[in-house]
Amino acid sequence: MNRPKVVITFEGNDALRIAVKSVLGDYCDIVYLSDLSAGERAAALESANALVSYNIAGDLRPDELKRPVNAKLIQLLSAGVDHAPFGKLPHNVPVAYNPGAFADAMAEHAVAMTLAAAKRLFVEDRNMRNGEFNQFVQNRLIRGGVCAILGFGCAGRSTARLLRCFGMKIYAINSSGKTDEPIDFIGRTDDLEKVLGDADVIIITLALTRTTEGLLGRRELSWMKKDAILVNISRGEIIDEGAFYDHLKANPDFTACIESWWIEPVRHGEFRTNYPFLDLPNVIAAPHNSASVPGSVIEAVRRGAENVRRMLTGGEARFMVTEDQRIR
Amino acid sequence: MNRPKVVITFEGNDALRIAVKSVLGDYCDIVYLSDLSAGERAAALESANALVSYNIAGDLRPDELKRPVNAKLIQLLSAGVDHAPFGKLPHNVPVAYNPGAFADAMAEHAVAMTLAAAKRLFVEDRNMRNGEFNQFVQNRLIRGGVCAILGFGCAGRSTARLLRCFGMKIYAINSSGKTDEPIDFIGRTDDLEKVLGDADVIIITLALTRTTEGLLGRRELSWMKKDAILVNISRGEIIDEGAFYDHLKANPDFTACIESWWIEPVRHGEFRTNYPFLDLPNVIAAPHNSASVPGSVIEAVRRGAENVRRMLTGGEARFMVTEDQRIR
Repeated sequence: MNRPKVVITFEGNDALRIAVKSVLGDYCDIVYLSDLSAGERAAALESANALVSYNIAGDLRPDELKRPVNAKLIQLLSAGVDHAPFGKLPHNVPVAYNPGAFADAMAEHAVAMTLAAAKRLFVEDRNMRNGEFNQFVQNRLIRGGVCAILGFGCAGRSTARLLRCFGMKIYAINSSGKTDEPIDFIGRTDDLEKVLGDADVIIITLALTRTTEGLLGRRELSWMKKDAILVNISRGEIIDEGAFYDHLKANPDFTACIESWWIEPVRHGEFRTNYPFLDLPNVIAAPHNSASVPGSVIEAVRRGAENVRRMLTGGEARFMVTEDQRIR
Repeated sequence: MNRPKVVITFEGNDALRIAVKSVLGDYCDIVYLSDLSAGERAAALESANALVSYNIAGDLRPDELKRPVNAKLIQLLSAGVDHAPFGKLPHNVPVAYNPGAFADAMAEHAVAMTLAAAKRLFVEDRNMRNGEFNQFVQNRLIRGGVCAILGFGCAGRSTARLLRCFGMKIYAINSSGKTDEPIDFIGRTDDLEKVLGDADVIIITLALTRTTEGLLGRRELSWMKKDAILVNISRGEIIDEGAFYDHLKANPDFTACIESWWIEPVRHGEFRTNYPFLDLPNVIAAPHNSASVPGSVIEAVRRGAENVRRMLTGGEARFMVTEDQRIR
């Protein structure tokens, strides 16, 4: 009996392995790459019907990337897949991304940073520790304001649902210019000037693609309100790093909440900025940790495994990576 | 023709004076204390049918507090009235508090501080500025958690509405043990042990009264989860200051979001703590500024003036201060 083989490229603790088994155990043999010797790894990759991977460039050795030639699906576990080394994988293998597992956590983080900026939490906590008690310096109500959400996938929509409860108006930008969500405005990147100009809060949840890389440059930043709050929970590269730094220096009432950076450990092996953002008082910095909440990795593994199961049982896998998303 | 006289004890900018006039102008003469000479002030206070005051102890000179003997109402503009010098005012004059004007702003601030703690915003911003990028240190999802709200007036209910949108369960404590709000549990202070024990987040919006002063001491703090988040947006005195400091020292995973302090400028003429809370890493500090958003003072003035108008036009003023609230 020749069961399909699914190779899991990450090590996986007991809880993760149980989750994978509960979804896929009836349909295939499950092999953990980290349990194998070098020779076994090569054979497993070459005979795999599917791979499940969190960080494929980190889990596979450089010479192993070309091996999964018989795979019908490489299932990645993150919503953003720009870090995958598409050019080094067999180019006929379909790759899927994995939306939604982290959306609630990312949305909470985006709202947390938005409110921290609006309420001046960092500024006034610092002032108090320096002996100032500024009870009557105004902070801001987000109720009634406009929130622009760039990218209206799972994380964008989750964020919108939370901020609508606060009484914010939601303007969104996505690639289709359409949505079923209740919304005050939806458009495409053609509408950026209007959307950015009206926004009190701008939240970036866009996937990094050839189209979105550098989407926000000097011109787009100049359209924003001088005291806007910009929250980036997707990828640093959506924003021109130098233009953004200059904008923050020139506009002290503008607040940048940066959770996603240009050069980061998982994607680039180190954290580094080309401009000293961390010396600016109008920056709230987070280490790309919005997805790091209890249970989120298991949820991602379960969803990814379900997509593999769909393919194994004769259905069509969902969330296929498009050519525009293959930036490496 | 003898029109009633309403004395406004604060100076009032143009916008505030327009708001007062729009509500009361048809029903009474409006006199601003700050426009009068010393002799005129005494006469105005003695003949006033009502006073409208933000900080009566600060606006009236000590010898003036006893003068409004003919007033049918002293309308205060804040929701909390513990700072009013009840013992020095003519003791037959009814005093009203002013709920609701600041509730939305306070609720946003409470959620802001809750999320800042849950998402470790301060901890990780500090770590990043010290060169650490802790992408995989877990932070917390508030969805699915329990929020205990102590005091279920306007600010408490507004906070509950926001946090229900995040998928938190709401347990509330008020004096009646009843509410019309959708809620998962409502009780009275008898239920504190259950409510505090179950809570991931505890938000204090109680009025300071003879009953609530020192409500949370060593015993009550010991009932809380070791990693709970406590947000105080009402009055420092609800919590035993020394017990709270010891609790925070002993429980580094517990986060205190302190917006309301024990000794504060408006109420006590200075900001001071008896314990070095501001040296603790698990404290997020705000200068009692949750109400300081654009438009909130005008809204408070309008609501207060409306209550005065109710009295002047033969109705009954609302929100009367009870004996239990007269703590000074």
